[in-house]
Amino acid sequence: MHIPDAIKALRAHLATIADLRATTAILRWDQETYMPPRGTAGRAEQLGTLTRLLHELFVSSQTQALLAAAEGVLDQLDPDSDEAALVRMTRRDYDRQSRLPAEFVAARARAASLSTQIWREARRRNDFPGFLPALAEMVDFARREADYIGFEDHPYDALLDRYEPGMTTQDIDGLFSRLREVTVPFVRVIVERGRPVEDGFLHAEYDVAQQRAFGVAVADVFGYDFSRGRLDESVHPFETSFHPDDVRITTRYQRNYLPSAMFAIFHETGHALYEQGIPPALARTCIGHGASMGLHESQSRMWENLVGRSRPFWQHYYPILQRSFAPLRQVELDTFYRAVNRVQPSLIRVEADEVTYNLHIMLRYELEKQLLKGALAVEDLPEAWNERMHAYLGVTPATDADGVMQDTHWSGGSIGYFPTYTLGNVVSVQLFEAARRVHPSLLEDIGRGQFATLLGWLRQHVHRHGRKFLPKEIIKRATGTDLTPEPYLQYLRSKFSDVYGVTLEEPARRSS
Amino acid sequence: MHIPDAIKALRAHLATIADLRATTAILRWDQETYMPPRGTAGRAEQLGTLTRLLHELFVSSQTQALLAAAEGVLDQLDPDSDEAALVRMTRRDYDRQSRLPAEFVAARARAASLSTQIWREARRRNDFPGFLPALAEMVDFARREADYIGFEDHPYDALLDRYEPGMTTQDIDGLFSRLREVTVPFVRVIVERGRPVEDGFLHAEYDVAQQRAFGVAVADVFGYDFSRGRLDESVHPFETSFHPDDVRITTRYQRNYLPSAMFAIFHETGHALYEQGIPPALARTCIGHGASMGLHESQSRMWENLVGRSRPFWQHYYPILQRSFAPLRQVELDTFYRAVNRVQPSLIRVEADEVTYNLHIMLRYELEKQLLKGALAVEDLPEAWNERMHAYLGVTPATDADGVMQDTHWSGGSIGYFPTYTLGNVVSVQLFEAARRVHPSLLEDIGRGQFATLLGWLRQHVHRHGRKFLPKEIIKRATGTDLTPEPYLQYLRSKFSDVYGVTLEEPARRSS
Repeated sequence: MHIPDAIKALRAHLATIADLRATTAILRWDQETYMPPRGTAGRAEQLGTLTRLLHELFVSSQTQALLAAAEGVLDQLDPDSDEAALVRMTRRDYDRQSRLPAEFVAARARAASLSTQIWREARRRNDFPGFLPALAEMVDFARREADYIGFEDHPYDALLDRYEPGMTTQDIDGLFSRLREVTVPFVRVIVERGRPVEDGFLHAEYDVAQQRAFGVAVADVFGYDFSRGRLDESVHPFETSFHPDDVRITTRYQRNYLPSAMFAIFHETGHALYEQGIPPALARTCIGHGASMGLHESQSRMWENLVGRSRPFWQHYYPILQRSFAPLRQVELDTFYRAVNRVQPSLIRVEADEVTYNLHIMLRYELEKQLLKGALAVEDLPEAWNERMHAYLGVTPATDADGVMQDTHWSGGSIGYFPTYTLGNVVSVQLFEAARRVHPSLLEDIGRGQFATLLGWLRQHVHRHGRKFLPKEIIKRATGTDLTPEPYLQYLRSKFSDVYGVTLEEPARRSS
Repeated sequence: MHIPDAIKALRAHLATIADLRATTAILRWDQETYMPPRGTAGRAEQLGTLTRLLHELFVSSQTQALLAAAEGVLDQLDPDSDEAALVRMTRRDYDRQSRLPAEFVAARARAASLSTQIWREARRRNDFPGFLPALAEMVDFARREADYIGFEDHPYDALLDRYEPGMTTQDIDGLFSRLREVTVPFVRVIVERGRPVEDGFLHAEYDVAQQRAFGVAVADVFGYDFSRGRLDESVHPFETSFHPDDVRITTRYQRNYLPSAMFAIFHETGHALYEQGIPPALARTCIGHGASMGLHESQSRMWENLVGRSRPFWQHYYPILQRSFAPLRQVELDTFYRAVNRVQPSLIRVEADEVTYNLHIMLRYELEKQLLKGALAVEDLPEAWNERMHAYLGVTPATDADGVMQDTHWSGGSIGYFPTYTLGNVVSVQLFEAARRVHPSLLEDIGRGQFATLLGWLRQHVHRHGRKFLPKEIIKRATGTDLTPEPYLQYLRSKFSDVYGVTLEEPARRSS
């Protein structure tokens, strides 16, 4: 295909911006993995400088002119081509970013860095009042961002679109309402009537080197290419991509709790498979990575839960795991399978099981909306948090450190991010079921330790698009339907009826 | 002291540039330590982009205007102040950099990256003709750089000044002539009449984890602050600094050769102590690091050789080393001391001993000068190399891989760099002797495992200046005299007369 010069010029300019963005990711990876403890202050300066240059360069008149010229030749391009997608997405990003004044972006970056330090310290001391001024400032930045970006219905729309392009607060409200209606009774039935699950053996002594070796072996057979990636340790596990040929993951090991590192590796491998599956032709562009946080999370949750917490997977891998770890040698497969799928209303989101997880997300989402609207004062957050925890999960945190201060997101200004976790759960099943329709043997393949069927389908229907289309378009193309929670709810019903020996049913719906 | 606004404005601008420079160093560190094998291409793009932005920003009209304004208030400043030094050194850098067209800098960076890959591959295959076109291109870049920069006597002056500001080819010629006149006969006497040195035990089995532990322990007592640094592995050991609070070193371990990793750690620790000793007030400026390659090398060679290969050091540390490594338990201190100071004319610079090392440098320096002048054709390099190796060291490489292709410098375009290694050797002794005049117990302190006396003197007389002054000024301030090779020659004479049980004397000088 002939590529017009205006497209080539835009692309060359965007490559510089993509390189700078990759560079900030490298600096962050280093900060979380190997940076010496006292390197923090210097690193904050370096990241501040790069973030500022990146923003200035992207919202420059140069970008504006190159983008306008490229739009002038858009009608010569196939709408599905990489080039057309590049122009469309650059326009989307430019219109958003150029509404934010450079001073606002720089001030927010500095404040977020400072606020994260304050949060870390305040959380350690369980001192919400100490965190309050910084948190209030970050909420204010979020409100101002929404005002700069603009919105029709709810300021939350302006923030959500940053993490989940094309998704609205109304979409999330509908989705969450349906999820809540079904899962709250599920949890009640499981807690009240479920067959008890034994999981004490998961807290035995598990050699860290063996944990690592098992995790690497599984990531490798999932399809993670270690010649284009690596696994390191960090306080919070994460995946980061600098280029489709340099996609890294981290985990953290707990000597006395096997699932922590293992499922984190499966999860981060899911993210990494997405980024390693981006076509090389999209590298160094704004469409050369995953389409959204939610779609990314669909990949990580699929490999963590639909594969890694499935019965077929452990039918194949449990004997191998038993060979690595003595504490499992007397534990039956069924006992192990039920243990890693135990449902337990708890305080901490990142430790939550598949059934209760989304309730943690709904709580945050609802509080964020109220904060943005001014319907909830920042100083009243702990009380609102604790009330809602009790209503949804029947538990109440003893401290704010285990309650409202447990996550880093708000301290870093990432308001609008949380719903993407639940979107990921929902979309993971919708995609998985679409793959099963084409490959009815999918679960049998997993039970034979063969993952190429699943990965091949994901490569073809999700990964190869990078960020060429909005998430909802990718979901529609891949599954034939719009985003829907029904496959996910059916999955939960079926899986946990089995795990707990109960019949999980939908609440009777009032006819209207 | 009141700091004029013009200085503050210049400094803020230069901080952005310093952050970008630090970022390129972080990317290079990652490339050498942890980057996945297939990350090379993406990293080359990222480094190319950053190098270009860095150059554009530094030679911009903005820098020019800020610098001119700052020079306008220079007479209000103490000439020894940080601010005055900042203006002077920025002018020096600006005048040099702004002579190089941006396209030239970008083209050279790309060519250097490519050429280094070609060299690596050609060296593996011992294929000098395969390397020749790339090498010829890099020599051409060097010639063009010299033309852009300008010079009076010799094009080499223009290149040398990049690595050793204020030093001329004439200075080096005089220095090297004196070194050659003394050390060539030294080598002959040692080889012909020296008491044989036994060092087979150095090639026994040495546990890598123990090697690392010993190296870290010594680096720590030398004064390397691991809360502001770290030790990793790479193919070629190096030190790099992103900020005075983030200064990192690497080494490589050989299971069957103890000295390799150990002395590399001592050496790189010397570099790191210099960078960690830069005053925080100079961070994020162009004077916030070591003054030159030569002065840097004086620090690394001092800790590697004057400390780490000294008899007092091993009187204290040899018993500790013996506890770590079984193969040493039957080896006497004197035998060990002589083994790590063995003089042996050899083919490879990085493995050369203290006496023959500079002959390797002279050879490269002389060939570089001839290449630049056009007096030697690039295709004739292997023959010229081999002839000179025989003349200086009495050895001839069997392959070009062990000859003219052994070092990476030329493939990366670093012509003019080599003399700084010998300058480092010379200056290390001049500084050390100056410290001994003030602290006559210096060697006794080292013999007690106490290094604070030496480090304290270096902090006070070298490190605290950062790059505020030219190297020759720092040497003069620290030692009271200009650069001179005599203390160094005296050191070699005394040390190796002892090691080899011979009397090393200067050749009779012809009266004139």
